[in-house]
Amino acid sequence: TIADAIMGALRPAARPLHGLRALVTAGPTHEPIDPVRYLANRSSGRQGYAIANALARAGATVTLVSGPTTLPPPPGVELRRVETAVQMLAACEAALPCDIAVCTAAVADWRVAGAGAHKIKKTPGAPPPTLTLVPNPDILAHLSQPGPMRPRLVVGFAAETDDVRDNATAKRQRKGCDWIIANDVRAETGIMGGDENEVTLITATGCEHWPRMSKDAVAQGLARRIVAAFAAIPDTDTPDTAPDGVPA
Amino acid sequence: TIADAIMGALRPAARPLHGLRALVTAGPTHEPIDPVRYLANRSSGRQGYAIANALARAGATVTLVSGPTTLPPPPGVELRRVETAVQMLAACEAALPCDIAVCTAAVADWRVAGAGAHKIKKTPGAPPPTLTLVPNPDILAHLSQPGPMRPRLVVGFAAETDDVRDNATAKRQRKGCDWIIANDVRAETGIMGGDENEVTLITATGCEHWPRMSKDAVAQGLARRIVAAFAAIPDTDTPDTAPDGVPA
Repeated sequence: TIADAIMGALRPAARPLHGLRALVTAGPTHEPIDPVRYLANRSSGRQGYAIANALARAGATVTLVSGPTTLPPPPGVELRRVETAVQMLAACEAALPCDIAVCTAAVADWRVAGAGAHKIKKTPGAPPPTLTLVPNPDILAHLSQPGPMRPRLVVGFAAETDDVRDNATAKRQRKGCDWIIANDVRAETGIMGGDENEVTLITATGCEHWPRMSKDAVAQGLARRIVAAFAAIPDTDTPDTAPDGVPA
Repeated sequence: TIADAIMGALRPAARPLHGLRALVTAGPTHEPIDPVRYLANRSSGRQGYAIANALARAGATVTLVSGPTTLPPPPGVELRRVETAVQMLAACEAALPCDIAVCTAAVADWRVAGAGAHKIKKTPGAPPPTLTLVPNPDILAHLSQPGPMRPRLVVGFAAETDDVRDNATAKRQRKGCDWIIANDVRAETGIMGGDENEVTLITATGCEHWPRMSKDAVAQGLARRIVAAFAAIPDTDTPDTAPDGVPA
């Protein structure tokens, strides 16, 4: 029909990420201690859900791997719910290959060794139990490893409370990802769990501070940067010839 | 008006707890580890919110002290939101004196010693941090202590995964409360975080198993038991002459 022809002609501009696959992680992970207790963190998932939404609206095919949140899934996004870091890694691996990975989730750095099937009892007079922690898989570093399955663009988040820019710059190099979005999650900023964010985008070539804005606006800004980065690559169908990490 | 007179005449039957003050605790507590991480548990708060609602509908003046939940406050109930066990105890003390206390909250048994103002960094190659736990205040035991501020009826909950009845019976005696409502929170029951509950009411005189039913039905059943217990006391306006713990 004429309408289809018009929509088809409009698509390249309106859906610039059409044909690209994106993986977005969001939310906290919960790491069980026993059947009723767990370790958690204050991530609401809002920033990750907003990014998944912005990438889908830009035309990408989006898989959102989400830890426990109370948010509705963005329209047109395939949602995979997980609880723990180990489950999140498995869900991310199942979503490969993809072109773009944005790791927004606040993955617990540690889980509890030998998390039990029975509730730990409080014994009157006995000392509290000791929680022995073991490292969780590092999903961002894992996705950033060179190889045929590496997404062409890997973006990480860094939730910092001190020396935000320095810590995040070091994190970018240590993890091997292309971009890091750093934010200051000190309680007094109200960012973790709130509606707004104030971020610094760190690439191989520099740092760019964005003023405080809504998490939706951060997501739209990031989607625009991703569109520009992929537009700068002549042929998105030949990943073997793409550079190691899309330049900023 | 005539309508007022009719409502006034109906009130004693329809609102049998009119004139009594009730304190209900609900939900989990979150115990901070650092600015972004915390210890939590799987309590949804649903059972406690349902009990607060049932007591308010029975005419009681209800204060609901709630840990973090996503539930809407029941109509006509005064809601006090808290996060930690220490905050919950303070909010309970501020709600005294009262006639009825129902401790539904899944209060964390322990908090993290020296919870920090800075995010714990994951240092590559370094061992995971050790979480040193210290006991939290025991709110149920605290409210159950004899004295002029003791509610006339103190009801506790026992979330158990093993030997539910034996553990809960021992808990009733150890805490000094009047009634314990025990439930089985093994993951396979789906009770913690779910819509249904299957409880055993344990009093000084025995155990009574209730079949599996909605959490609203458990709340209504408990409210009826509370109405019956207070109806059995000749004069609710003279607490000095009331027995130590309303008999079951």
